[in-house]
Amino acid sequence: MNYPFSERIKAMQPSAIREILKATADPAIIPLAAGNPAPDAFPVDEVRRITADILRESPVEALQYSVTEGHPPLRAALRELLALRYCALGAEDDVLVTTGAQQCMDLIARCFLNEGAAVICENPSFIGSLNCFRSYRARLIGVGMEEDGIRVEALEQALQSNPDARLIYLIPNFQNPSGITMSAEKRRAVYALAQRYDAIIVEDNPYGDLRYHGSDVPPIKSLDVDGRVIYCGSFSKILSPGIRVGFLSANKAVLPKLTVAKQCADVHTAILMQMLCHRFLLECDLTAHIARLRASYSARLALMLSGIDTQWSSAVRHTSPEGGLFVWCTLPAGADAMDFCARALKRSVAVVPGSAFMCNEGDETTAVRLNFTTPSVPKIKEGVELLGALTKELYGA
Amino acid sequence: MNYPFSERIKAMQPSAIREILKATADPAIIPLAAGNPAPDAFPVDEVRRITADILRESPVEALQYSVTEGHPPLRAALRELLALRYCALGAEDDVLVTTGAQQCMDLIARCFLNEGAAVICENPSFIGSLNCFRSYRARLIGVGMEEDGIRVEALEQALQSNPDARLIYLIPNFQNPSGITMSAEKRRAVYALAQRYDAIIVEDNPYGDLRYHGSDVPPIKSLDVDGRVIYCGSFSKILSPGIRVGFLSANKAVLPKLTVAKQCADVHTAILMQMLCHRFLLECDLTAHIARLRASYSARLALMLSGIDTQWSSAVRHTSPEGGLFVWCTLPAGADAMDFCARALKRSVAVVPGSAFMCNEGDETTAVRLNFTTPSVPKIKEGVELLGALTKELYGA
Repeated sequence: MNYPFSERIKAMQPSAIREILKATADPAIIPLAAGNPAPDAFPVDEVRRITADILRESPVEALQYSVTEGHPPLRAALRELLALRYCALGAEDDVLVTTGAQQCMDLIARCFLNEGAAVICENPSFIGSLNCFRSYRARLIGVGMEEDGIRVEALEQALQSNPDARLIYLIPNFQNPSGITMSAEKRRAVYALAQRYDAIIVEDNPYGDLRYHGSDVPPIKSLDVDGRVIYCGSFSKILSPGIRVGFLSANKAVLPKLTVAKQCADVHTAILMQMLCHRFLLECDLTAHIARLRASYSARLALMLSGIDTQWSSAVRHTSPEGGLFVWCTLPAGADAMDFCARALKRSVAVVPGSAFMCNEGDETTAVRLNFTTPSVPKIKEGVELLGALTKELYGA
Repeated sequence: MNYPFSERIKAMQPSAIREILKATADPAIIPLAAGNPAPDAFPVDEVRRITADILRESPVEALQYSVTEGHPPLRAALRELLALRYCALGAEDDVLVTTGAQQCMDLIARCFLNEGAAVICENPSFIGSLNCFRSYRARLIGVGMEEDGIRVEALEQALQSNPDARLIYLIPNFQNPSGITMSAEKRRAVYALAQRYDAIIVEDNPYGDLRYHGSDVPPIKSLDVDGRVIYCGSFSKILSPGIRVGFLSANKAVLPKLTVAKQCADVHTAILMQMLCHRFLLECDLTAHIARLRASYSARLALMLSGIDTQWSSAVRHTSPEGGLFVWCTLPAGADAMDFCARALKRSVAVVPGSAFMCNEGDETTAVRLNFTTPSVPKIKEGVELLGALTKELYGA
């Protein structure tokens, strides 16, 4: 039959990255394209022990239906974590457990985006969120970035020219894909603009714990006196992405709507996975676990950056992230990043063209995104070297 | 701030049932309102063993990101299950793993419903699906039911008067809330109508395995020569609802769109839960497990029906389901079902008013829904007796 697809889904294509990732299931390909935690990053012994404990002590609770808002003990632990560790829970806020941080975006879009509404995003930004907004037929308004975060004047212009833009989507820490961190000063300026134009800020912080040097910058949520910031977090980068547990904190007036949206989406998040997160927070040393991740990832990042600095064409610029998973490399003006990625793949290195992360087709970029957490240390070395030779052939020493 | 909620979410309220369920967390209340499997229905030993095996043998795979379509070995097992056990996989179909069957509805709505589009539903029908369609601003067109399923003439009328109705949502086996099963003849008639009016049938079959007497009726999907039936199933009633694993089979031309929608919704379903389902299918005797569930639930159903027949006012009619989880009791004309439920709750019995399941506000019903799988056998006895006394007080012997 001729399928009557909805207008919202007609234009959607499978994520370019996911398609590249499929092509790179081949173990001969050096995987600098993904955004996975390192295989040795998972606290496997703790997960084994906790899961066995849960299924011995509370099997029926782990397997039965539960409430949409989240496993109550996990919500309680998250309130504490958000208040004390992340400074991201105001007096009028509460917590919703979600099926990964991706579902935060889905629920927020469902609750706040009418068809055709504008969403202001950093440009480039995380493709998973951009595609989610697109699937609600949002207009994406991209605002460029500089070393210390979004261009504040350009953000104000975007708010002025798009009076229907009521959502501003930001990844202030070690942004995906750019690796950029927004300065404290800019966070204050952005919050002030959101106040002036009465917009909601969606603060996506999946990587905040993965800081390798420099000092933590308080989240925008910590400035929130109006209940206009929805803060999104995840267990994906500090425990496991496969378990699909994320969370958000938002004003108590917003939570019932997000909860209704979640009832419609998947009733609740897998309860055994929520119980695992709860007991991981309760029984394990999160700070020590994160310190291990930081040490491992920090060494990989340093290796990647020194390789780029010593082996790549000097015509390529790169960001120097203080944390996260990604380095953003800008090829010289006029370079064809898609062609670069295709050539890299022929040499067995997978990287993602920057165009995948742009808000709108036609937004020009010559950048490519490199990940340093998925590949092993020898593979990082080999991959960066192979890419370096390619840059020199294409763009000179 | 004054939150700019979307038009689609403004009108949505928390599900009446979920609110009733919250009120009945009190263990003093006899829970005839829920739709939970019995606490003793879970194969706890198998879940313990399989989970430990997975985390011993493949911990990284269980905790890492995976592909959106579903854990490949589970998809392979589901293809076989759908083809051989359920007769619900055509030559041109493939399988998508979802975060519970609720997500099937969400993905289908996202892919096929423009705002304001009509969806034809049995009236009454499952509130979770109705609310999901509402959250996409669908117009629900309710078609009444009789003993052997939807009224076919009324369905044709609905298709004629709503030419934009391209989705027909049906629960052919032991329908929630009515307990009604659609006859084979009606399934053929409904499929023929879908062909004539070029509509898609969403066949929701969460309860199909729970047949206590009578013979299985082949699913509408087994008649599907055009790829116009999307068949939805779930592990919720045969393994565990808390794990949130469902699935659908659909034509291969539809799956890429549903997959893109799922990427936007939650990336993929929790992988450890998918691996559990796969190994449960592979290593355990599903037929024997289902036989145990059937024996247990069948006895509860018989107890409930005999209690109603002997202790309730003869003015109350009820369905006699051949399977599933629910009995639908129709109070006499003019009765106030909401008031009945409120009075029942005062006597410590929770039941759900039929109005919760109607497609549109103002659709009249005097029915209430009773569940017989959540309460223990003594509680069923006690609850039915208490309700019987209430019916006699209100509606005479």
